[in-house]
Amino acid sequence: MVTLDFHPTGRHFLQIPGPSPVPDRILRAMSLPTIDHRGPEFGALGKRVLQGIGQVFQTKQPVVIYPASGTGAWEAALANVMSPGDHVLMYETGHFATLWQKMATRLGLKTEFLGLPGVEGWRRGVQAHLIEERLKADVGHAIKAVCVVHNETSTGATSNILAVRRAIDAAKHPALLLVDSISGLASAEYKHDEWGVDVTVSGSQKGLMLPPGISFNALSARALEASRSAKLPKSFWAWDEIVEMNKSGYWPYTPNTNLLYGLAEACDMLLDPHFGGLQGVFARHRRWAEGVRSAVKAWGLEIQCTETQSQSPVLTGVVMPEGVDADAVRKLIYERFDLSLGTGLGKVKGRMFRIGHLGDCNDLTLMAALSGCEMGLKLSGVKLAGSGVAAAMDYFAGHPAPVALQQAA
Amino acid sequence: MVTLDFHPTGRHFLQIPGPSPVPDRILRAMSLPTIDHRGPEFGALGKRVLQGIGQVFQTKQPVVIYPASGTGAWEAALANVMSPGDHVLMYETGHFATLWQKMATRLGLKTEFLGLPGVEGWRRGVQAHLIEERLKADVGHAIKAVCVVHNETSTGATSNILAVRRAIDAAKHPALLLVDSISGLASAEYKHDEWGVDVTVSGSQKGLMLPPGISFNALSARALEASRSAKLPKSFWAWDEIVEMNKSGYWPYTPNTNLLYGLAEACDMLLDPHFGGLQGVFARHRRWAEGVRSAVKAWGLEIQCTETQSQSPVLTGVVMPEGVDADAVRKLIYERFDLSLGTGLGKVKGRMFRIGHLGDCNDLTLMAALSGCEMGLKLSGVKLAGSGVAAAMDYFAGHPAPVALQQAA
Amino acid sequence: MVTLDFHPTGRHFLQIPGPSPVPDRILRAMSLPTIDHRGPEFGALGKRVLQGIGQVFQTKQPVVIYPASGTGAWEAALANVMSPGDHVLMYETGHFATLWQKMATRLGLKTEFLGLPGVEGWRRGVQAHLIEERLKADVGHAIKAVCVVHNETSTGATSNILAVRRAIDAAKHPALLLVDSISGLASAEYKHDEWGVDVTVSGSQKGLMLPPGISFNALSARALEASRSAKLPKSFWAWDEIVEMNKSGYWPYTPNTNLLYGLAEACDMLLDPHFGGLQGVFARHRRWAEGVRSAVKAWGLEIQCTETQSQSPVLTGVVMPEGVDADAVRKLIYERFDLSLGTGLGKVKGRMFRIGHLGDCNDLTLMAALSGCEMGLKLSGVKLAGSGVAAAMDYFAGHPAPVALQQAA
Amino acid sequence: MVTLDFHPTGRHFLQIPGPSPVPDRILRAMSLPTIDHRGPEFGALGKRVLQGIGQVFQTKQPVVIYPASGTGAWEAALANVMSPGDHVLMYETGHFATLWQKMATRLGLKTEFLGLPGVEGWRRGVQAHLIEERLKADVGHAIKAVCVVHNETSTGATSNILAVRRAIDAAKHPALLLVDSISGLASAEYKHDEWGVDVTVSGSQKGLMLPPGISFNALSARALEASRSAKLPKSFWAWDEIVEMNKSGYWPYTPNTNLLYGLAEACDMLLDPHFGGLQGVFARHRRWAEGVRSAVKAWGLEIQCTETQSQSPVLTGVVMPEGVDADAVRKLIYERFDLSLGTGLGKVKGRMFRIGHLGDCNDLTLMAALSGCEMGLKLSGVKLAGSGVAAAMDYFAGHPAPVALQQAA
Repeated sequence: MVTLDFHPTGRHFLQIPGPSPVPDRILRAMSLPTIDHRGPEFGALGKRVLQGIGQVFQTKQPVVIYPASGTGAWEAALANVMSPGDHVLMYETGHFATLWQKMATRLGLKTEFLGLPGVEGWRRGVQAHLIEERLKADVGHAIKAVCVVHNETSTGATSNILAVRRAIDAAKHPALLLVDSISGLASAEYKHDEWGVDVTVSGSQKGLMLPPGISFNALSARALEASRSAKLPKSFWAWDEIVEMNKSGYWPYTPNTNLLYGLAEACDMLLDPHFGGLQGVFARHRRWAEGVRSAVKAWGLEIQCTETQSQSPVLTGVVMPEGVDADAVRKLIYERFDLSLGTGLGKVKGRMFRIGHLGDCNDLTLMAALSGCEMGLKLSGVKLAGSGVAAAMDYFAGHPAPVALQQAA
Repeated sequence: MVTLDFHPTGRHFLQIPGPSPVPDRILRAMSLPTIDHRGPEFGALGKRVLQGIGQVFQTKQPVVIYPASGTGAWEAALANVMSPGDHVLMYETGHFATLWQKMATRLGLKTEFLGLPGVEGWRRGVQAHLIEERLKADVGHAIKAVCVVHNETSTGATSNILAVRRAIDAAKHPALLLVDSISGLASAEYKHDEWGVDVTVSGSQKGLMLPPGISFNALSARALEASRSAKLPKSFWAWDEIVEMNKSGYWPYTPNTNLLYGLAEACDMLLDPHFGGLQGVFARHRRWAEGVRSAVKAWGLEIQCTETQSQSPVLTGVVMPEGVDADAVRKLIYERFDLSLGTGLGKVKGRMFRIGHLGDCNDLTLMAALSGCEMGLKLSGVKLAGSGVAAAMDYFAGHPAPVALQQAA
Repeated sequence: MVTLDFHPTGRHFLQIPGPSPVPDRILRAMSLPTIDHRGPEFGALGKRVLQGIGQVFQTKQPVVIYPASGTGAWEAALANVMSPGDHVLMYETGHFATLWQKMATRLGLKTEFLGLPGVEGWRRGVQAHLIEERLKADVGHAIKAVCVVHNETSTGATSNILAVRRAIDAAKHPALLLVDSISGLASAEYKHDEWGVDVTVSGSQKGLMLPPGISFNALSARALEASRSAKLPKSFWAWDEIVEMNKSGYWPYTPNTNLLYGLAEACDMLLDPHFGGLQGVFARHRRWAEGVRSAVKAWGLEIQCTETQSQSPVLTGVVMPEGVDADAVRKLIYERFDLSLGTGLGKVKGRMFRIGHLGDCNDLTLMAALSGCEMGLKLSGVKLAGSGVAAAMDYFAGHPAPVALQQAA
Repeated sequence: MVTLDFHPTGRHFLQIPGPSPVPDRILRAMSLPTIDHRGPEFGALGKRVLQGIGQVFQTKQPVVIYPASGTGAWEAALANVMSPGDHVLMYETGHFATLWQKMATRLGLKTEFLGLPGVEGWRRGVQAHLIEERLKADVGHAIKAVCVVHNETSTGATSNILAVRRAIDAAKHPALLLVDSISGLASAEYKHDEWGVDVTVSGSQKGLMLPPGISFNALSARALEASRSAKLPKSFWAWDEIVEMNKSGYWPYTPNTNLLYGLAEACDMLLDPHFGGLQGVFARHRRWAEGVRSAVKAWGLEIQCTETQSQSPVLTGVVMPEGVDADAVRKLIYERFDLSLGTGLGKVKGRMFRIGHLGDCNDLTLMAALSGCEMGLKLSGVKLAGSGVAAAMDYFAGHPAPVALQQAA
């Protein structure tokens, strides 16, 4: 059997901001035998996951599930509502915003990339007032869509999507609002309907705690309407047939059955009222993030996202002092402590690393990760102001989780 | 945990032509924890699966693995080498050829659909001489690609791809040869390099014995060259970055890690010399097909594919007598005997059903399936000339499998 | 990973009378992480399995679960209620009755082995009147226990335990009634309380559909009382501490946690009202047995158990014609058709083989097994009167299962 | 499916001294389908595990594998070599030594319990000189066996077995040497042959990293000889038939097949030369123990085992200050931090808790456990001299593991 085993002993600590650790319950559910995607059992599964994922997106509108990883869902969002040469306003929060912008350009759209100068935009969330100003200036309504990233995975900044919605409304602009919440969904609060988002893009390997391989477009009525006249070529990504067939719990082409088993299990876990449901999920992530940030502060290191209200509940970017190569630190930590951390990407390559604190975590997995970081930083010669591990213990001990650990079966 | 359990007892018999039954070894391999797709362990996994899948395609050229199901790989093949309005010659072997043609049309290509009239083309393989004639007539070389289906899953006809290659060569035509071997690969002999195919499209849930969710484009130098100037918008499907990053065992965006575990295991199984390697795989499928066809003949029923040399080693279409609704028969068999059979699709809807005999099968799984069919046909009032089950037992008993069952560990 | 893979392709057919095929649901449940057997989660699990297994035994009295395979539970039953030199009356139904008798002798008991002469007793169930006669003759009540096998796994005879109870009562004899229902429980009707059994011995790897490794003693008040004064040395097997600690869901020593996960799942499956509950389980086994016997009769071969009312719902012994070595037939079937059948044991070694039709079976797994047998018998040169496969198809098609296959999720 | 889920999120930390965390590789191996324990595939498996487990015991003599948990193997060791009323000299190292002594008494042996007075013996290893003195006094050789515990799981003291062997030899006494290495094997160095042990008892759920359910007796020629004349009743535990049948890879009764799959995988992992083989295993445990002890010392708390050379590589007992209820601390830690610790047993109930550092651990799982302890101790009002977590980080960072983490696949 497949065992590319690099780990002499113990469980690897996967504290990157996705793929996040997959719970045993989900791995077991995913390993049940594949069934006929045209049989009656599948129809029941299909309805179940569609109902569950809608609750996670906090939407009553259709959610399209693609048998493709998250990058595909970015393309799907654009391909369904855009026509060649369309003008889209995108906001640069970091590396993933940049990748989405490159994709839009490659697909033949005219992209305008808004943001703060230099790396400054990579240390904050979306500045909604810049969007409002730009849209007001677009008196001819040339801009067809506004694209923002909810939780910028490369920096650890979570943007205020409702503020973006209000900015568009304030500008009285008809542009569609497209949001990437690939790493935000099911970790950070997200309200597709209430926030008036037209397309939300997400993926499986973050807060949903699944392996990569399925992804999502949550839709609005306006988005569906736009898709009827949009001219970018689309077939695999086309919403129309999928939304229609989903009514009976099926898909027009072969879905990713075993990941749907996992998704059903994930929804059961996330929505379980014994553990506080979705609000419990969000509260857990906020608390973990506080604990991790208290460690970074105690080390005397900078957090990548400087805007307090935008610091992500999902991950924290840790900036290295001048002269320290963040990737060398990560490598040492991986090799010595069997801990995977996220690399710095794009403009901050080598300048920072990222600690994921999402999904199937708890206080002690984070204490393990912080211990690995602290040992690794010291071994790398980074001068620390104090013990982040001690600070995080103070925080976690001092702030009990809102939902009690133990629950009746 | 997820248990949509429709089965009071015993294992379901999944004898559709894909998804095929997934072996326990693969399900277990797939359920190992997800790892960092940017870490060193992943690079080793990536190189291993790329090396293995090349052997399965019998190619030394790049094979692109998409974290998307098979329909996506159809789109990928077209999106990489075609430009809007390009003329493609496609051949109608059945429903899946038709779906691919519809996709090509939807993507903005000018499709020409060659084939025999009525349902006649759905009962045979590709008639290579028709392609040769058509290409010879295309003196201006307007046709940019020839698209054929290797194993037409809707009918059970396996076409001679080498004959198509020779037809193109005989016409001295520069069109690219694009082949769908989604349901042929790893069951029916397939030689990407030797047969001079430019792009072979395949998927995971057939001969590779995996759940659906990953798919493939095997490339040629000419295809890669064409992709550099082709103008259909492409990003997720674009070969360039993938082929480049694959050299180190990685992908430009998040791959479907757990299905790659499964793929590594599948390659180990398919290429295992103790079980005869790939040639053993093909010999097993040929033998199973013979056994199943001997049953259909004994029942006095027609086989959908009438061209003997094209009858598929992967599945057999069983045509119902006039007045019998094949789907009613299938439903009865499913409900009474927990056996899934393939439905008739498109032009032959309700006229036939399909028995899959691919992947993780053996003589007795097929005897079980044939028993279920025979009981179901009788219960549905279909008059049978004789016992197909008896005929299949005669065949299997009389023709030992070429590779002995038992092997040293 | 462990892969002693002797199977080039497809799923092995394990049609021995135990271990029976383990359902995927159970294998997945068993693979969840081991927990602290002294923690609160375990207590909830313990109570759940003890409650479930009581329902399966149809008892309200304690059931002791041993972290040991079934042979251990035989020893436990004797060690708890017997003293050295005690006289026990055992009944020879076949090989397993003989093994239990040997064990009792080895443990220092005075065993008396009742039965019909020669192999005659191996072709019938317990003759309760012989027990009654013997007990009546034992006016001094020297006999301390009567030991019978409910379902003799070596022959396929299911005895009438209620008749044995009545025989003891009719003789007004105080002997305890000890019953081995290792291969009967959860397949053949069994009522521990209603039938007045003092100790029922059972194991996991038969009707409970688990791997081997845990076993059971269901108790009565009289058995518990007897255990307080019995003098055979006992510690691991001693009921007293286990019964006491079980009240809180725990065990005095380390239990077999992962098999208990499987047991919880097995109880859920067996007791599931959607599938007819326990009565549905028994009805399924009776029907399978009828189908298999119809095949044996059509072959013109003898069934090992000649007493119609005792023919087992769990397995069927198939007697070979003179001169045919049953084990050679089995070996050929294993090697050619990847089907495991039970060997003839003890007095019938080489004279018969056994087909298991228990646990996680359905019509088609049995059709597969019968096809393998029919092909193997023919290849071995056994002259068959007709097709057993055809007869079984007639039976199964003609007698729908009492519980519909398909159920709402 | 079975989900008694008490854990809202993240992986539970099972840091008790057994059952130890079961690696994913082993859980997956154990979930493969159960096979016929009389078929050829099983014979290959049987030989493989017997060969592997012999290497782990460092013996060339037979190792008996029981389908029963560890307590059974204690009984087996006694039942095979003892006769009713035999005199055995046992040594009190702690709770498990006491339980074994109670078992021996219950089985009808005359036990003599040697040891230091009060709890003093519970804080040290076996004092071999006391055994030597006692045996010298036994000039009539009434004592038939000396029973000691290698690694006392209740206290964390690892005794010098070679010293005990030498003590017996120095006394020129013929008593057999029986050793319980249930929690020592595969974690602490153990040499069955070289140390001249007659019977070593072990179990699966400790250093072997398996769930509970199988257990072991490693034998010597003298033990086998003794078993031929020993008079305690034995059948299930009897070595004779097992040792004989094991020669062909089989067992006289149904073995615990799925745990044997796990055992094969465990042996592969423990003996893997890429990770340093058995010596690598021992070195890892010694290092972990040092790290944990450095934490306890920094807290200013006492270690249960005061004899430095006997401090266990497997677990560490942490003594609470006067007035602190260790179980209340454990409960708080479990409920707040999802970490299971071992309770104080017997004489030290409520006075200490135990941290397991065995099997599938690594530096960060131990840092997680120590963080949970430190937070829990503080929350319980225990005054700590300093941060044990900081001390352990210093130790682990300062002492790289002898085998590099990363290995080629």
